[in-house]
Amino acid sequence: MTKTQYYVAASVDGFIADRENSLDWLMQFGFEEFGADYEGFLADVGVVVMGSRTYEWLLAEGSPWAYADRPAWVLTSRELPPIEGGANIRFASGDVRELHTEWVAAAGGKNVWVVGGGEVAAQVADAGLLDELLLTTMPVVLGAGAPLLPVAATTGVLELVSTQRFPGGATGAVYRTRG
Amino acid sequence: MTKTQYYVAASVDGFIADRENSLDWLMQFGFEEFGADYEGFLADVGVVVMGSRTYEWLLAEGSPWAYADRPAWVLTSRELPPIEGGANIRFASGDVRELHTEWVAAAGGKNVWVVGGGEVAAQVADAGLLDELLLTTMPVVLGAGAPLLPVAATTGVLELVSTQRFPGGATGAVYRTRG
Repeated sequence: MTKTQYYVAASVDGFIADRENSLDWLMQFGFEEFGADYEGFLADVGVVVMGSRTYEWLLAEGSPWAYADRPAWVLTSRELPPIEGGANIRFASGDVRELHTEWVAAAGGKNVWVVGGGEVAAQVADAGLLDELLLTTMPVVLGAGAPLLPVAATTGVLELVSTQRFPGGATGAVYRTRG
Repeated sequence: MTKTQYYVAASVDGFIADRENSLDWLMQFGFEEFGADYEGFLADVGVVVMGSRTYEWLLAEGSPWAYADRPAWVLTSRELPPIEGGANIRFASGDVRELHTEWVAAAGGKNVWVVGGGEVAAQVADAGLLDELLLTTMPVVLGAGAPLLPVAATTGVLELVSTQRFPGGATGAVYRTRG
């Protein structure tokens, strides 16, 4: 059964990019201690979804496309450059409910990962389509920046499914975000 | 040895009051499961510090003054009404470094609790005077509201001292916030 998941890292105070829209605060922690968690998560992902700025950030970063041959939806009303090398990317805009039906169909029984940014995840959550928030909280306070999940109204009480603690001081929490 | 502590509850996305400046989202959880943690914390508190809006919120709420005979500093540049019944309250404004010296002296070896709001705690943190953030994260997303700790610049990496998990889905984390 396909779940729609927002797997993301944030600061203690709930920002996913700093006030200069940088991820340096996150990159300083490296990925080594999070690798097993991420690989375990990614193994069950059938489709990735992201906003235009997240996509542009990935393009600018210049690393190889990290999602292998999984179909990726980039939500955008703008014309964006494709990624070299045959990544399976669909640029789309429109009603998130209709798109969500496409994502679930394309996921083939695996999960839909909403990569970000926060506004895209909030759009999915506001439509009642987000099943899980998988949050890694890094031990740093940003003070300002891009919000984690700027939903239009306060949510109901979430169910805390699991927690974990990483050696470097990060913590993980998985929340069920609907019904 | 006196520690200056910010003990506070926030939403998953780092807000301490909602977009209507209400605490209803917090109050819905009740206090019962947090009582032992709070009492243990409060037992080591010698001085409480808060901003004018936190003070006014407590006044409006109308409950008995919760800090017993501990000296309380209310940071304000405005004239505020005193609390009935002989609470030990000092209205003050000015340089947080000088005030901090007073707080530590008055704490008599116990700790200084910065109750809030976020701007007051950030002022203390920005001055390098905050020792610990004791954060309880409630399982709810607000989307917008009063920020947890709006520091002027990204902090260094904090040390995660301890974590806990409450039955209703809240989590606790204690961070060391300097040296």
